[in-house]
Amino acid sequence: MDIATTPRPRTGLPAWTRGEFEAQLREKGRSYHIHHPFNVRMNSGGCTPDELRCWVANRFYYQICIPRKDAAILANMPDRAHRRLWIERILDHDGHGDHEGSAAGGIEAWTRLGEAVGLAREDLWSLQGVVPAVRFACDAYVNFAARAPWQEAVCSSLTEMFAPQIHKDRLATWPTHYPWIEAEGLAYFRKRIPLAGRDVAHGLRVTLEHFDTREAQHRALDILQFKLDILWNMLDAIEKACQ
Amino acid sequence: MDIATTPRPRTGLPAWTRGEFEAQLREKGRSYHIHHPFNVRMNSGGCTPDELRCWVANRFYYQICIPRKDAAILANMPDRAHRRLWIERILDHDGHGDHEGSAAGGIEAWTRLGEAVGLAREDLWSLQGVVPAVRFACDAYVNFAARAPWQEAVCSSLTEMFAPQIHKDRLATWPTHYPWIEAEGLAYFRKRIPLAGRDVAHGLRVTLEHFDTREAQHRALDILQFKLDILWNMLDAIEKACQ
Repeated sequence: MDIATTPRPRTGLPAWTRGEFEAQLREKGRSYHIHHPFNVRMNSGGCTPDELRCWVANRFYYQICIPRKDAAILANMPDRAHRRLWIERILDHDGHGDHEGSAAGGIEAWTRLGEAVGLAREDLWSLQGVVPAVRFACDAYVNFAARAPWQEAVCSSLTEMFAPQIHKDRLATWPTHYPWIEAEGLAYFRKRIPLAGRDVAHGLRVTLEHFDTREAQHRALDILQFKLDILWNMLDAIEKACQ
Repeated sequence: MDIATTPRPRTGLPAWTRGEFEAQLREKGRSYHIHHPFNVRMNSGGCTPDELRCWVANRFYYQICIPRKDAAILANMPDRAHRRLWIERILDHDGHGDHEGSAAGGIEAWTRLGEAVGLAREDLWSLQGVVPAVRFACDAYVNFAARAPWQEAVCSSLTEMFAPQIHKDRLATWPTHYPWIEAEGLAYFRKRIPLAGRDVAHGLRVTLEHFDTREAQHRALDILQFKLDILWNMLDAIEKACQ
């Protein structure tokens, strides 16, 4: 099993209060890929069109892993109340109802982003531009989600706490730096901001409730770090691949 | 791994046409639990209220396994088009939208059936009446669904081809034989008839397409038999437990 399952030694210390624990989780935002040099360059206008296309194509693999990751967690959830909340994530990504317009889902919105940066749908969906290290990182996430207790898998999703800012940054900077990208192509980023908020409310509730000793709380931080490492390593690989 | 994964020897024979293959699958209906002595007795009015309660309580375990089984299959489906169809099964069972009325889902409808036969919601949900052999059989199904290639898991769901008749039988016979059961409690059976038809259309399409050699077609029949055995063994266990 992967690093995120390594047990933590006993500390003998009392559990943090929920407020302290949440602050520790949020503190992890310092390792979020928003600070990765490639992301900083991307949002400062320093990327070429080819680099943006490379990023969109590789990140697409992450997008298509998400519903399978969430279905794996759903399969491990014995409680209907949690399943009813969790399934919304899959519907967000794969689409729901008539799958038209805004009901087409996040993967479709990402496909439109691809088209807006000049990637044909077939090329994006062929996954031909996805480098091995990106596959390994995303697969590590899916595998962890499938095998870990569902509360740990839920905890690993908490990088979403930091996601609204990265989306807001893109919306604020891309139109100026990359005016050649059709504004409509950025809908994915806009759409994720409120959804991330809803997801985090559920994910935090589960995490703050489940990890109730100091050791367990450290483990939650390790799990969140594992997920942060996945995102960071994806950008390392993308930066290298796009040179 | 379980019996359903034992490979079939080469036959050297050409594949059946889709029509022949479908006929072979439908022929398996002869082993459907509609013919189990306990089911025959239940639909002939020969069950005591305690026996009906025992059946409802044990079968509830199957009901709550279904969304987890379907989520496991969803997690293994790489194709969004199939996922978009498959997720409907989870929404049917766990409920969707506001989860009120008919949107409350199949597990809720089964809970109302429980109440109609005199089982309090808490007693049903406590699973205290579920016998080990029923758990083993249902868990075997969930585990197969999670580990098998998704097309094989889809194939195992094809006992639904035979389900509309068993539901119609209950709707036709229970009001006469068991007038003490509130008619509204039978809504689960009524609701499943059209849903089973929709599910079978998708499941059959996947199965007829995927199993395209004579050996593969035999394997599909073995998988369907495995699922039929699960349902049959549940009734064996329930019959014994309810004595």
